[in-house]
Amino acid sequence: MPDEKETGRLEAFSDGVFAIAITLLILEIRVPKPEELHGHLLPALTALWPSYLAFVISFATILVMWVNHHRIFALIRRSDHPFLYWNGFLLMMVTLVPFPTAVLAAYLMHPEEAKVAAGVFAGTYFFIALAFNGLWRHASKNRRLLAHDASAQEVDGITKQYRFGPVLYLVAFAASFFSVGFCVGLCLALAVFFAVRGGAPETA
Amino acid sequence: MPDEKETGRLEAFSDGVFAIAITLLILEIRVPKPEELHGHLLPALTALWPSYLAFVISFATILVMWVNHHRIFALIRRSDHPFLYWNGFLLMMVTLVPFPTAVLAAYLMHPEEAKVAAGVFAGTYFFIALAFNGLWRHASKNRRLLAHDASAQEVDGITKQYRFGPVLYLVAFAASFFSVGFCVGLCLALAVFFAVRGGAPETA
Amino acid sequence: MPDEKETGRLEAFSDGVFAIAITLLILEIRVPKPEELHGHLLPALTALWPSYLAFVISFATILVMWVNHHRIFALIRRSDHPFLYWNGFLLMMVTLVPFPTAVLAAYLMHPEEAKVAAGVFAGTYFFIALAFNGLWRHASKNRRLLAHDASAQEVDGITKQYRFGPVLYLVAFAASFFSVGFCVGLCLALAVFFAVRGGAPETA
Amino acid sequence: MPDEKETGRLEAFSDGVFAIAITLLILEIRVPKPEELHGHLLPALTALWPSYLAFVISFATILVMWVNHHRIFALIRRSDHPFLYWNGFLLMMVTLVPFPTAVLAAYLMHPEEAKVAAGVFAGTYFFIALAFNGLWRHASKNRRLLAHDASAQEVDGITKQYRFGPVLYLVAFAASFFSVGFCVGLCLALAVFFAVRGGAPETA
Repeated sequence: MPDEKETGRLEAFSDGVFAIAITLLILEIRVPKPEELHGHLLPALTALWPSYLAFVISFATILVMWVNHHRIFALIRRSDHPFLYWNGFLLMMVTLVPFPTAVLAAYLMHPEEAKVAAGVFAGTYFFIALAFNGLWRHASKNRRLLAHDASAQEVDGITKQYRFGPVLYLVAFAASFFSVGFCVGLCLALAVFFAVRGGAPETA
Repeated sequence: MPDEKETGRLEAFSDGVFAIAITLLILEIRVPKPEELHGHLLPALTALWPSYLAFVISFATILVMWVNHHRIFALIRRSDHPFLYWNGFLLMMVTLVPFPTAVLAAYLMHPEEAKVAAGVFAGTYFFIALAFNGLWRHASKNRRLLAHDASAQEVDGITKQYRFGPVLYLVAFAASFFSVGFCVGLCLALAVFFAVRGGAPETA
Repeated sequence: MPDEKETGRLEAFSDGVFAIAITLLILEIRVPKPEELHGHLLPALTALWPSYLAFVISFATILVMWVNHHRIFALIRRSDHPFLYWNGFLLMMVTLVPFPTAVLAAYLMHPEEAKVAAGVFAGTYFFIALAFNGLWRHASKNRRLLAHDASAQEVDGITKQYRFGPVLYLVAFAASFFSVGFCVGLCLALAVFFAVRGGAPETA
Repeated sequence: MPDEKETGRLEAFSDGVFAIAITLLILEIRVPKPEELHGHLLPALTALWPSYLAFVISFATILVMWVNHHRIFALIRRSDHPFLYWNGFLLMMVTLVPFPTAVLAAYLMHPEEAKVAAGVFAGTYFFIALAFNGLWRHASKNRRLLAHDASAQEVDGITKQYRFGPVLYLVAFAASFFSVGFCVGLCLALAVFFAVRGGAPETA
């Protein structure tokens, strides 16, 4: 039985979605028009800092998601019908990322509304973690879509690592009702964790 | 006579169009600006529900179209000149999807205008079904563009399944003059049918 | 000396640009907002016809350009530095297409301004024809970038066919000062000609 | 030990980002609406020249970056975890390009603000040069990610050529406090240099 890569077109389509989602982010940063400028250009540009922050966070989040997608697809050889829709659900989350990030950036300095914004932000991350879990569990159950030579250690490592994602993002969501700082800090710390661990075995 | 895949670049181009169309949808959901907010953030976010609904329906529709495109291209090996334009017509329909969906979402709660919006919505689906039929019939006539080893059962299955699409969407279009609910419900039910059946043989 | 295809990444990049340019067109068609609607939805939707017309013309133009790009790259095996920039110039023209088309659609019904709009439209087509000529001449000169087995008949056919493009579009541009109808009609007739001839040898 | 190309998906993702960034540029050029037109169409179109200029500069800059990316990836065979993030940082710079260019175009004719705009412009180029250096140094250190047969002359040539990029862009940034013309001229001259040299060895 050959073990050819059958997921070429699925990866190409996914790469397209990741690439577009990550590139559209810049559209949210509007150049201040000369005729609308009150005062000077430099303060007008620095006043856009929440947009820059949202840009960097969204870009980094989508990049980390791409690296993780790349990592798990390196172990996957086949595709089936439910897998296409799990991947579709994950891609929907990818395209959504800019929205909660923009909401957070816009309301971070409004004490009362910031809690709602942080909740929306953490909630989105929760669904992202859920989508990665669903995609991976469907593929790895009985190793049905995996490469024959995928290392068991690597497979188990991903399963363990992804398992606690949704739980921790749920904690972050709950925290948003009390502390915006703790909620957002936990989300970003988890993103850094998945960034650092996301491709670790490949580099080892 | 070799039976190489000659449609690589056509699929790459099509994947690009699908990926972009599905990712642009998020641009329709605007973050409520702090200075325009009357009241609180949470009600302002929930008031955007027609945009969320349009986003989910458009995303799911384009994803189902991609899965079906993926399915029929798995059987196709060659390309000819009219086939490029049939595929182009289908891609035009893909890029159009967000427009009727946005119209429907915007006018769903306006009793009189909702009928027009539902008619536009069903009409677009009718043309999508027509495009899939044209593409498939051109490719499968005398099996001219199909793989030599494409199973006759699978080929006939697709032909049968696609045949009644345009007729049913025409029914949905006619229904829009009487009942918005029946029209939209029929469209979505058909989308679910094509989603479930779209890749079935591959999973079998 | 092997004759491998070395232009894979160049084609992927080009396909990306074509796919995005053709998909962005829909962003130009704005859904009429309920609160801005004077009267009913149906007349508001039909009043958008210049946008629909621009959408269809731009979509068809970019599709025909893609089919021609696909056709000539089927004969090309190698790439060099100037070729990358000729291709880049062609891609710049691809991304430009929506602009003159939108200008034409917006001003078609304004007698005086329509001449300027038609001139801009024909002028863009002139540069498109120039870009295709430059790309093809660079590649086909002494057959330096062509496949060893590219048929001389096919190569000469493309050279002949592309040669008169810029001249005729220059005629269309000159005609814009006298007759908008003749100018636009000539441009569209030429597009249809390149659409029909663009892939002809492949289907033969 | 085989020396297969392992960076296919990384290149596809990068090509997607380059292709989208270069295509989105056209969205910045708005068609003057008939109802907003004071006077005639031709002067209204020519008044958009700063937008056209920004379009051409951004397009050319991203194209030159793509040619350079293409050039160095022709020498690279493997990928590791930090390399994915260096490439991600470079792609972030690619998506950023339209912003400083639009700022420069908008404020070029405002004597005082033009200095700030030129500084932002040169600063972005500085970070682009930094990203190319980081990506290349990570890949070429001990030739860890390079093809076994990559020519030492070519590798050293790129290292030397990229080394002085950040320094010169820093000079351009410093110059922005004194002379807008010198700053922008130096940036464009360097872009032309990287355009001409970027693929030179391949054509030799």
